[in-house]
Amino acid sequence: MAPEAVDLGFARVDVDREARQGLPEVVYGSGKTPEQVVGIVRTLLRHNDGPVLVTRVEPEVAEFVLAAVPDGVYDGGARLLVWRPAEPGGFGVVVASAGTADLPVAREAAAVAGAVGLGVTTVTDVGVAGLHRLLAEQERLSTADTVIVVAGMEGALASAIGGLVACPVVAVPTSTGYGAGLEGITALLAMHASCAAGITVVNIDSGFGAAMAAFRLARVVGRRTA
Amino acid sequence: MAPEAVDLGFARVDVDREARQGLPEVVYGSGKTPEQVVGIVRTLLRHNDGPVLVTRVEPEVAEFVLAAVPDGVYDGGARLLVWRPAEPGGFGVVVASAGTADLPVAREAAAVAGAVGLGVTTVTDVGVAGLHRLLAEQERLSTADTVIVVAGMEGALASAIGGLVACPVVAVPTSTGYGAGLEGITALLAMHASCAAGITVVNIDSGFGAAMAAFRLARVVGRRTA
Amino acid sequence: MAPEAVDLGFARVDVDREARQGLPEVVYGSGKTPEQVVGIVRTLLRHNDGPVLVTRVEPEVAEFVLAAVPDGVYDGGARLLVWRPAEPGGFGVVVASAGTADLPVAREAAAVAGAVGLGVTTVTDVGVAGLHRLLAEQERLSTADTVIVVAGMEGALASAIGGLVACPVVAVPTSTGYGAGLEGITALLAMHASCAAGITVVNIDSGFGAAMAAFRLARVVGRRTA
Amino acid sequence: MAPEAVDLGFARVDVDREARQGLPEVVYGSGKTPEQVVGIVRTLLRHNDGPVLVTRVEPEVAEFVLAAVPDGVYDGGARLLVWRPAEPGGFGVVVASAGTADLPVAREAAAVAGAVGLGVTTVTDVGVAGLHRLLAEQERLSTADTVIVVAGMEGALASAIGGLVACPVVAVPTSTGYGAGLEGITALLAMHASCAAGITVVNIDSGFGAAMAAFRLARVVGRRTA
Amino acid sequence: MAPEAVDLGFARVDVDREARQGLPEVVYGSGKTPEQVVGIVRTLLRHNDGPVLVTRVEPEVAEFVLAAVPDGVYDGGARLLVWRPAEPGGFGVVVASAGTADLPVAREAAAVAGAVGLGVTTVTDVGVAGLHRLLAEQERLSTADTVIVVAGMEGALASAIGGLVACPVVAVPTSTGYGAGLEGITALLAMHASCAAGITVVNIDSGFGAAMAAFRLARVVGRRTA
Amino acid sequence: MAPEAVDLGFARVDVDREARQGLPEVVYGSGKTPEQVVGIVRTLLRHNDGPVLVTRVEPEVAEFVLAAVPDGVYDGGARLLVWRPAEPGGFGVVVASAGTADLPVAREAAAVAGAVGLGVTTVTDVGVAGLHRLLAEQERLSTADTVIVVAGMEGALASAIGGLVACPVVAVPTSTGYGAGLEGITALLAMHASCAAGITVVNIDSGFGAAMAAFRLARVVGRRTA
Amino acid sequence: MAPEAVDLGFARVDVDREARQGLPEVVYGSGKTPEQVVGIVRTLLRHNDGPVLVTRVEPEVAEFVLAAVPDGVYDGGARLLVWRPAEPGGFGVVVASAGTADLPVAREAAAVAGAVGLGVTTVTDVGVAGLHRLLAEQERLSTADTVIVVAGMEGALASAIGGLVACPVVAVPTSTGYGAGLEGITALLAMHASCAAGITVVNIDSGFGAAMAAFRLARVVGRRTA
Amino acid sequence: MAPEAVDLGFARVDVDREARQGLPEVVYGSGKTPEQVVGIVRTLLRHNDGPVLVTRVEPEVAEFVLAAVPDGVYDGGARLLVWRPAEPGGFGVVVASAGTADLPVAREAAAVAGAVGLGVTTVTDVGVAGLHRLLAEQERLSTADTVIVVAGMEGALASAIGGLVACPVVAVPTSTGYGAGLEGITALLAMHASCAAGITVVNIDSGFGAAMAAFRLARVVGRRTA
Repeated sequence: MAPEAVDLGFARVDVDREARQGLPEVVYGSGKTPEQVVGIVRTLLRHNDGPVLVTRVEPEVAEFVLAAVPDGVYDGGARLLVWRPAEPGGFGVVVASAGTADLPVAREAAAVAGAVGLGVTTVTDVGVAGLHRLLAEQERLSTADTVIVVAGMEGALASAIGGLVACPVVAVPTSTGYGAGLEGITALLAMHASCAAGITVVNIDSGFGAAMAAFRLARVVGRRTA
Repeated sequence: MAPEAVDLGFARVDVDREARQGLPEVVYGSGKTPEQVVGIVRTLLRHNDGPVLVTRVEPEVAEFVLAAVPDGVYDGGARLLVWRPAEPGGFGVVVASAGTADLPVAREAAAVAGAVGLGVTTVTDVGVAGLHRLLAEQERLSTADTVIVVAGMEGALASAIGGLVACPVVAVPTSTGYGAGLEGITALLAMHASCAAGITVVNIDSGFGAAMAAFRLARVVGRRTA
Repeated sequence: MAPEAVDLGFARVDVDREARQGLPEVVYGSGKTPEQVVGIVRTLLRHNDGPVLVTRVEPEVAEFVLAAVPDGVYDGGARLLVWRPAEPGGFGVVVASAGTADLPVAREAAAVAGAVGLGVTTVTDVGVAGLHRLLAEQERLSTADTVIVVAGMEGALASAIGGLVACPVVAVPTSTGYGAGLEGITALLAMHASCAAGITVVNIDSGFGAAMAAFRLARVVGRRTA
Repeated sequence: MAPEAVDLGFARVDVDREARQGLPEVVYGSGKTPEQVVGIVRTLLRHNDGPVLVTRVEPEVAEFVLAAVPDGVYDGGARLLVWRPAEPGGFGVVVASAGTADLPVAREAAAVAGAVGLGVTTVTDVGVAGLHRLLAEQERLSTADTVIVVAGMEGALASAIGGLVACPVVAVPTSTGYGAGLEGITALLAMHASCAAGITVVNIDSGFGAAMAAFRLARVVGRRTA
Repeated sequence: MAPEAVDLGFARVDVDREARQGLPEVVYGSGKTPEQVVGIVRTLLRHNDGPVLVTRVEPEVAEFVLAAVPDGVYDGGARLLVWRPAEPGGFGVVVASAGTADLPVAREAAAVAGAVGLGVTTVTDVGVAGLHRLLAEQERLSTADTVIVVAGMEGALASAIGGLVACPVVAVPTSTGYGAGLEGITALLAMHASCAAGITVVNIDSGFGAAMAAFRLARVVGRRTA
Repeated sequence: MAPEAVDLGFARVDVDREARQGLPEVVYGSGKTPEQVVGIVRTLLRHNDGPVLVTRVEPEVAEFVLAAVPDGVYDGGARLLVWRPAEPGGFGVVVASAGTADLPVAREAAAVAGAVGLGVTTVTDVGVAGLHRLLAEQERLSTADTVIVVAGMEGALASAIGGLVACPVVAVPTSTGYGAGLEGITALLAMHASCAAGITVVNIDSGFGAAMAAFRLARVVGRRTA
Repeated sequence: MAPEAVDLGFARVDVDREARQGLPEVVYGSGKTPEQVVGIVRTLLRHNDGPVLVTRVEPEVAEFVLAAVPDGVYDGGARLLVWRPAEPGGFGVVVASAGTADLPVAREAAAVAGAVGLGVTTVTDVGVAGLHRLLAEQERLSTADTVIVVAGMEGALASAIGGLVACPVVAVPTSTGYGAGLEGITALLAMHASCAAGITVVNIDSGFGAAMAAFRLARVVGRRTA
Repeated sequence: MAPEAVDLGFARVDVDREARQGLPEVVYGSGKTPEQVVGIVRTLLRHNDGPVLVTRVEPEVAEFVLAAVPDGVYDGGARLLVWRPAEPGGFGVVVASAGTADLPVAREAAAVAGAVGLGVTTVTDVGVAGLHRLLAEQERLSTADTVIVVAGMEGALASAIGGLVACPVVAVPTSTGYGAGLEGITALLAMHASCAAGITVVNIDSGFGAAMAAFRLARVVGRRTA
């Protein structure tokens, strides 16, 4: 019988998660040494079959890890390392972002979503201060199975898109902006207080969290349409 | 051509929403006069075909409105008024709540979800301070298409369930508890900071918001399986 | 020579303000006894020539004051008492509000603006969750000399209108909503963090403050076009 | 027909804004690469006729951009890049600042206002702890069409000037000070809670926002006097 | 030897404080039963010789206590009960308040200061939005031994007076105002962030605290001039 | 007679604490110069007999101090310097941590507990998102005399363990995580709002504080079993 | 085999807790109907052998419940209902409170501790503003096995006692005080930031939580001394 | 006639302050260039007769300024530059600090107080966790004309000293500590919520502010005893 967790001393790798949730544990790279990342990635590759991801990886760490564990790919814009990416499935996610400064978070969302097998389209720079830019994308938005909305400052894009589409909307507040933006807290609170019904919110700057929420949605659709 | 909105002076009823999002506008009852509620409900019933809901309705207001607009039903535990509820579909939602004090919010989530056609199961009093109560429900949780987690105080139930199930988890922080609970703010923040990947969060005490998030997902499944 | 201030013991009425700023001191009614309001209003009527306003007046106080000081008018929806309202001038203000719950604040803004001589148009229930309702009013908005935007919850309407019109936009956050709305703090912060350039913000629920800001604008236009 | 927006991949430049709001989109330089700034500026210069501005530009970025896009001017004190500045019009703005530490924000306000064609006068170091310094400037303040008040710490200057002048007052809280100043949050809240009626507030350190608010007003005056 | 404290079961009355600090313990009336107040007051009257004060006393409680403990006086405006008030000494305190709503706190400061033997002058309604009202009182302020400044909203009066006078300035933030005033927190923070050097601050609405601070200073003067 | 405190000019070393509380004063290394640390450590070693500890010591400081004061040991993972560690006693502490990022704080707790004579077992990476990992450790947890729970993000591990064990639980919130975690404030509040009865909390990242709380308990056990 | 939990529909009573943690689940009375309390109490009495407690019970609810479930006792000062209180054991708890206003919380702590079998001594009104009152109790404090410190306002008593005694100190912040006390948040934060090593903190006003923490301590001592 | 202010372009030096408040304007050095400091200091030395101070000066800036403006003295521990210090007068200030980390702020308070002519005594490391250290200084404290209390973390020292002495107590919260200390905010709030009557508070880390408050007190005493 396969072990449920492999204890590396500094980490207890949850190798059972693939069986339980359809995806191996995703590694949060920030604050781990390159050696720790290598150890965890090797364990996941050995004990699981699916995609292995490490988020928030700086370039120099990526270089070290890729040298030690072959066949991985690094996406610098998303700060993501991936081994064995999933084949793109039929579940379509649109990642819509409000401004140029929100792009790194949007890229993380898109790259993680792609690596776990979702189909990804990106729509950038559609902040509500220029509604015509948003409305020009209405058709593309309306075909999505899920929209991930990435917005900092006042986060109003989540409300606007929530009213335009019928599908699930996952809002990611970002820490862009300054002063009253409170490093993303204002956007997070505003998205919760939104007048658009049924939108949900993940942690500040967590493109990863939004992609995983979409992955959970895709699994249900997959199960129901199998 | 049908109008997009009907202006009642005090409100501009979005009668186009049913076409746009698959469900008529849901009326937020709090702060509206009984007469205003009657006016909006009549407009929605006339211009749409689907279920009409009013949330956060006190009993005396419900009585007045039901007398004026026949064929509605009032659910006192959920403070919800419903006309023309949808037929239950095949999409299964489990509403899991942490403690007795969280029940009113859980009831709102369950009643709204039921009224818009989702299949609802409830699991109550499974707070993490008694993990065996939660684990005893693991099977029921694992069959859900979506789990709505309702928890106040420290909101830890969302993390625990997020790690147990593979389906979407929508967390509703509640304002139960006292002191450091900060009337739900602590639970809201804690749910966002959760170590469980891909759970999403709605506003404090918003059982309604969670149900609508589930409804959006059910629509995608419906569209994909049509 | 006219006195600069009249000391009533409990208040020092700034009777010079009309000369200094073009409008007598406006009385903040909340927390004052009916007798105090009567005393201040009489002093202002005697020492000034322009409109005299008392804001935040409950109906029973209004009744008492009107009985003691004739020729005033009470607007219950705006909780405003007015004597000697100004003639409507050519400066056009549009008061746009996001939802039904924001109406009391919008009414205060409109009533104060009207009483000091501005031309007022109201546009209600144009929240960003239904953008078509907002866009349908674009022409009316574009003719305004100033738009006052009244919105609670996430306050996104300010950003949206800020991007649509070229004229000054004064945003009023309201304390409507619940939970993460933090009784208007979230909307206030969000309006400040807005991605729309050049919009300005006043205190929570201060329809009065927004109207006075518009009055200052109108005075400049008046002076420059005189 | 002119395009509404030009998509550069990393940004969707709103080239229609000049037609819509009388001024091309202003570029927020912080967080953009020099290459991105060059791309956006070129697009704006090509598709619009008015002034092109980039705010929050560090000297080394400015040098790179000016080498690539000729005929621009860099104002280091205001961290502003400008191409095709507008001719000074008749609308007079006074930028009043409370202390030496508020000067960078005041300079941004003044430089942006000047670049978009407003007439600018500056009044520095008139904090309320030395009222005679403020009162000595009363005449200059009273001739303004708009006063921009730049103040950190407790932000009391906004209230004092709000009571002295009849024209619009736009308050800019700054992040100067320490401890209880909370990096500008205290000044922002205090300016909103001000006892002076009709003053409005923009985001912390946003000299740019205040200048744009003044520009909106100047446009109305211009339109009315045209 | 006199006892240091008298234990009444519900309270341990610090009867030594008169010897230690020159004034018997002052009783905080809020939250105590009338019977508890009677017990503590009797103990203080018996074991000490100086003035005995109870703050924050509602009228009905005052009536009960005065019936049980004769020779006391109730000041309803200040909500203060006093027995054996001190003779007025030569130390002069000016209590300056910003608005009508600040009067109850100003009255508490003045009444407590008077009861412990300070000479009190009051200056009301001198908020900074009407600087001429404040400047008209400059002479009276300059003769004070200490100025107590009572102000809510943005609390700017403390900075202005701090710059006008050379004597100690004790600032009392009040909970008047609404919205961004945060029930006095904004004024408290703003007074701390003040640009006027050497002003000190006490708790929100604590007219009592300010009066006691002045009493401490008067004692030093008394000791030095004895 | 031994002195109660030794004054080094920059510090007044509490050499009486060993007699009063069973352990010499523990030195907080952060913000002290190496020379100051040397001076305090020498004083403690001279005037006391028990273990001497310095927390939060960076490697370069440790090297300097160890060169000056022989016979000490530096634990880099815990940033702890120790002289004369206590013999391990029979009181058993389990230090359980939620994730890899919480390890430095867990190490400080374990190292301090060990140095003052407690028996320490560590259980790592048992966050509630993988309950089976936690439940697999239930037996080890149930034999503890005290469990120290180290967890950041939402801090849910404290509630879960609080419900599993009967012994004292001391929760240490950590500043790991980002965004809504608010650098440990969210975990601290959540642990206080916990639904598990009788768990207690120490300051953010204070592994030291938790170990000292356990030491206080061990002393009671020791005294009772002596 | 005994059931782990009994499902009453509105609550799932954790009847296994007595076996797991040595004490039946304690019922939090606030927000439950009298009928719900009766149902839960009956279940606990039937399935367990130890003391049954209900906290936060108002007098009218207590009367109803006691009529339905005989042999209970109501302590009005502590708002506590108890059936089958434990025999007092040898573990001694001192409950020390800072002021009269903290008494209700201190009473809850004392009553709960007594009902679960701890020996309780109370020390009242020993706030740090009268250190001699505190020092007079030093001997009584030094004999305690645990000290529960109940203090609102600035919560300084926890630090002072933490430095005086060697045993465990559990601090309970209370919501007494006003203004800057922030309804207990200030005391909670201050107790965490305390300079006294090894004190622990429970939720605001949670006399119950502190008593349960002491119960956990007593169990360890009991087990070790058995 | 002497000018009221001298305009240096970047600053408007308040040269009238010496006449108005008995001391030239004190220069806040942080954020000013060395050249600006030189310019202001020269202006003050020329137009005033009293001591000239610059606070928050880093060593390299001090060196530059002293080279340009002779006869000044730099106190590195207090980061203070002084020219023409006042003769020590008879007013005695005790600066008491809680821990070693509070020393820099205490030194600023002591150095500024000394430079403006107050008699200064320092008492260090008397935190309330070791009350005997504080009580050993009681005599020295009781002879003070004013006590400045410098304390971070929970700031409890202010309450303890406030209860021990009868003279004015000025509390300075410091930003020492970590986690729940919130960089001084907790100490500031706790000092305001203090149970000791009549203590006053200045801004976080503002040793300067406390010294200036003492200077104001000394002036009154001087005037009254002249």
